[in-house]
Amino acid sequence: MRGAVLHGPGDVRVENRPDPRIEQPTDAVLRLSATCVCGSDLWPYRGIQKMDGPAPMGHEYVGIVEAVGAEVTSVRPGQFVVGSFWASDNTCEICRAGYQSGCVHRVPMGSLGSQAQYLRVPLADGTLVATPEVPPAELIPSYLAASDVLGTGWFAATAAEAGPGKTVAVVGDGAVGLLAVLAARQLGAERVIAMSRHESRQKLALDFGATDIVAERGDEGVARIKELTGGLGAHSVIEAVGTQESMMQAIRSTRPGGHVGYVGVTHDVNLPGMEMFFSLVHLHGGPAPVRRFLPDLIELIGDGTIEPGRVFDLELPLEQADDGYRAMDERRAVKTLLRP
Amino acid sequence: MRGAVLHGPGDVRVENRPDPRIEQPTDAVLRLSATCVCGSDLWPYRGIQKMDGPAPMGHEYVGIVEAVGAEVTSVRPGQFVVGSFWASDNTCEICRAGYQSGCVHRVPMGSLGSQAQYLRVPLADGTLVATPEVPPAELIPSYLAASDVLGTGWFAATAAEAGPGKTVAVVGDGAVGLLAVLAARQLGAERVIAMSRHESRQKLALDFGATDIVAERGDEGVARIKELTGGLGAHSVIEAVGTQESMMQAIRSTRPGGHVGYVGVTHDVNLPGMEMFFSLVHLHGGPAPVRRFLPDLIELIGDGTIEPGRVFDLELPLEQADDGYRAMDERRAVKTLLRP
Repeated sequence: MRGAVLHGPGDVRVENRPDPRIEQPTDAVLRLSATCVCGSDLWPYRGIQKMDGPAPMGHEYVGIVEAVGAEVTSVRPGQFVVGSFWASDNTCEICRAGYQSGCVHRVPMGSLGSQAQYLRVPLADGTLVATPEVPPAELIPSYLAASDVLGTGWFAATAAEAGPGKTVAVVGDGAVGLLAVLAARQLGAERVIAMSRHESRQKLALDFGATDIVAERGDEGVARIKELTGGLGAHSVIEAVGTQESMMQAIRSTRPGGHVGYVGVTHDVNLPGMEMFFSLVHLHGGPAPVRRFLPDLIELIGDGTIEPGRVFDLELPLEQADDGYRAMDERRAVKTLLRP
Repeated sequence: MRGAVLHGPGDVRVENRPDPRIEQPTDAVLRLSATCVCGSDLWPYRGIQKMDGPAPMGHEYVGIVEAVGAEVTSVRPGQFVVGSFWASDNTCEICRAGYQSGCVHRVPMGSLGSQAQYLRVPLADGTLVATPEVPPAELIPSYLAASDVLGTGWFAATAAEAGPGKTVAVVGDGAVGLLAVLAARQLGAERVIAMSRHESRQKLALDFGATDIVAERGDEGVARIKELTGGLGAHSVIEAVGTQESMMQAIRSTRPGGHVGYVGVTHDVNLPGMEMFFSLVHLHGGPAPVRRFLPDLIELIGDGTIEPGRVFDLELPLEQADDGYRAMDERRAVKTLLRP
């Protein structure tokens, strides 16, 4: 089959890779309907995250079940399925507590490479959720978003305890930040402040339910959030970037007793203990347990309540994956969908 | 009046200080029944926390109301009262959310110095809680504990979401750690693991409801907690020390999705973002909003349900405050009560 492989910084090639096959009785193999490029794929693409030799890329996927192992019972060939970027058994104590991304048997799907025509999914019963029927083409981008960016934004909003009566600020206007706006609003937040300097992203944030836009960042952004919240800071702040500046901006924008939900992969970030201590904020985040939310998200997409697929503003054939990476790296695209 | 003043590292002197008086209509002045030395007082005593010249010391107190300002309505002269180490209005939005230590009008009581005969308490209505009657002498140490160490341990256990069905580990065997054991148990935790290498502290932890003792610390302590929790880590971990080692021990002892409640004042601590991210823990703590818990704690002490005053293992006249500091510095005493 054809699949994207990163050979070094800036060097993504679509090449022949071995066809996946059932290796364990708990595996499924999918024929992918769509896949995409994640903001976190840019870390190795930019050389910030080191690699050990060429690596297959991609961890977001939706597709048709092609084959299942002998022990798989919850999905069957021909079904359209959505999975998360961690394979998880969904039965261990950690999964049952809603932390499938911390599953004791978890497998990072990035190691298997979903930017490809086919994908082997370990622990298929625990990982995949089938839609009621094979969806029409126009819903596929939204289901694909559920695989990571929507699920991650939803987790961030949940971790930040967005809900009725709350003012929520969102740091980061990438796909995750924009979908965190959507999630916060769906969870009932009264006011959602999107922090963005880019007009097209501001517009999408407003469409997703943002009530306010703040263009300032860093200390000025913090001051603006304080101004909008009677000097106290937001109840809930979502961090969807993963830098020292964005983490501190999130923590400092939160009122004492408020909640920070952080889902940007935190490279080279150090949180100063004394400032954390006196901030009195709650901090929670990490790799999102997307599987927890998938059944609900699939329902909300299926009935047209939400349209998270709108974050894809570039669509390319898989063969042009390198163009998709470049467009995101140069911030010409929020998120690139790839058609295998 | 007489009061303790820190002149420099290791140099605590009890000397004449001006008698406090009502300065604001919201003030009260207390004649103190008892006060004490806090683990956090040892930071400046040891020279780790810098000072600007001589400073009155102490922020824990119980006593009899001597005088109140014209606007004070909730306490009156002659009543026995307990207050927290932050004066708070208890009416602002932050206080109403239960974060009185983040009150928009808060005053640190440490700046007023409670290791003294008398104490001015700002925002008396919001800060002080009266007991139903003037208590017998034997209850005074327990009420004094409520002023900080019990309230702080209670907050830590609450922040760590200790409760029914939970396994709670406590890092730190000082007064706060020991009372966090008590709090976790009172909040219904199924299993409470006290981490301590000191026999007398282990014994008190067991008396307060610890079900297990772990003497190992650092990586070995983490490994032991994992062993005791099926390899997963504790649901809830309380950090009551405030060093890099103790914070990392707490975070690493917590299962994915679990909760760390931290109340040790975090000097020179830096939390590595990447490890925090992948730990998937909840982190919450800071200066405890003791005021939130005072009414309940006063009731539990009054009816004999809890006896937190047992953490005081040294009692001295105020005039010997220096001996009290030294005993705690040398870990000969868990906590020193001072009689003004």
